[in-house]
Amino acid sequence: MTGSLVIVGTGPGKPELMTPATEAALAGATDLVGYGPYLDRVPLRDGQCRHASDNRAEIDRARQALALAASGRDVVVVSGGDPGVFAMAAAVFEAVETGDAAWQALDIRVEPGVTAMLAAAAETGAPLGGDFCAISLSDNLKSWTTIERRLKAAAEADFVIALYNPASRARPHQLAQAFDILRSAKAGATPVLFVRAAGTSEATVIATTLAAADTSAADMRTLVIVGASTTRKVGRWIYTPRSERGAVS
Amino acid sequence: MTGSLVIVGTGPGKPELMTPATEAALAGATDLVGYGPYLDRVPLRDGQCRHASDNRAEIDRARQALALAASGRDVVVVSGGDPGVFAMAAAVFEAVETGDAAWQALDIRVEPGVTAMLAAAAETGAPLGGDFCAISLSDNLKSWTTIERRLKAAAEADFVIALYNPASRARPHQLAQAFDILRSAKAGATPVLFVRAAGTSEATVIATTLAAADTSAADMRTLVIVGASTTRKVGRWIYTPRSERGAVS
Repeated sequence: MTGSLVIVGTGPGKPELMTPATEAALAGATDLVGYGPYLDRVPLRDGQCRHASDNRAEIDRARQALALAASGRDVVVVSGGDPGVFAMAAAVFEAVETGDAAWQALDIRVEPGVTAMLAAAAETGAPLGGDFCAISLSDNLKSWTTIERRLKAAAEADFVIALYNPASRARPHQLAQAFDILRSAKAGATPVLFVRAAGTSEATVIATTLAAADTSAADMRTLVIVGASTTRKVGRWIYTPRSERGAVS
Repeated sequence: MTGSLVIVGTGPGKPELMTPATEAALAGATDLVGYGPYLDRVPLRDGQCRHASDNRAEIDRARQALALAASGRDVVVVSGGDPGVFAMAAAVFEAVETGDAAWQALDIRVEPGVTAMLAAAAETGAPLGGDFCAISLSDNLKSWTTIERRLKAAAEADFVIALYNPASRARPHQLAQAFDILRSAKAGATPVLFVRAAGTSEATVIATTLAAADTSAADMRTLVIVGASTTRKVGRWIYTPRSERGAVS
């Protein structure tokens, strides 16, 4: 008897931003495994077991899900956003690599979803209209030196930069440090967006500049986008033209 | 009388990967504007007008959509994937910036979608599990010098790299040039994925390495992912651990 494991993302929050494929996976599960607030986005279904856990225990949650699937259950691991972007999919494959050899034979599948930076960009216009990068500022799993190196490279190569996990109670000062690095390589007038709760009914946007940005405005639910040299304001929108020469008339 | 303009993405191709929010926007439109093959993904609705165009005419298509909205129509501009990633949203805001001043007062909204790199990653495991960047190899709108600079920076800072538009009939050799640059900064054993038609029923994956990759395998429907130094194979999956120290046991 073998079960299955599907790793899904609920999208940014609004039910209308969860894909039908993810909805179908959730409907077919015997067991849901995930961080409590993400599980809360999933409607209750009769006979379905829920295994809620703390946000920190990603690898334990992944192992629990794999063990359930190996015992014959049809398990769905629930992330927010897209499960492959700073979320549970990598944790599950880490657990496969370091765990029971039999787990490599399991039926494991990933369903893509709408990740936070896409929802944040859509709230504001099209700031990701050019080449861009995504960096998590959390240094739980990588060194601050690595983060600094990537920020510098991204600024010097003029990528639009999406910052995930810009701040938490344990790391209140890192976004300010990150902005110091970016200010040394980018113009003060560069557009900066703080998008809180993107893709939910509570979404708020602060549109500012690299020089003027107040980094204390970011919290765990904020996605920060720092523009490229061509990123600009038109009317109430911020966008990055497709051309490096600016808008084509 | 004023109309509205919503810019949507159909996702990578499968109807189950289009969000319900996008589906609702499409259902409410009087007019659909887009590249023919993307419009073909949308079910026909009685009384709805379709304005299909060539893939190259993005800015003209954007102006047509804005003019229709200004005349009182409820217009949806249809992209593939996510409309803000190498797609129509930036073209629409360029057209707003350079066009009729009245267009800045229009009701314009962007709906996020599942972009190709997320669907490609999901087909293969979790290759985008760490910091990553997205670069379009098309030099229609930016110089090859800029693309080279970004490839070098991304390789040196050890980002996972997603390459959009890796090849076309007009540009058959650029992916080989891009790989030459990446090979000078990254190990030959770095995992490389060629994912064709990701998120459709015809999806195919070639998992290879930077040293062994045959760049002629890529075409317009291919998304290429080049791993970071930690990206690895486990069983039949490719993933990037969350930690720069590798999988946490």
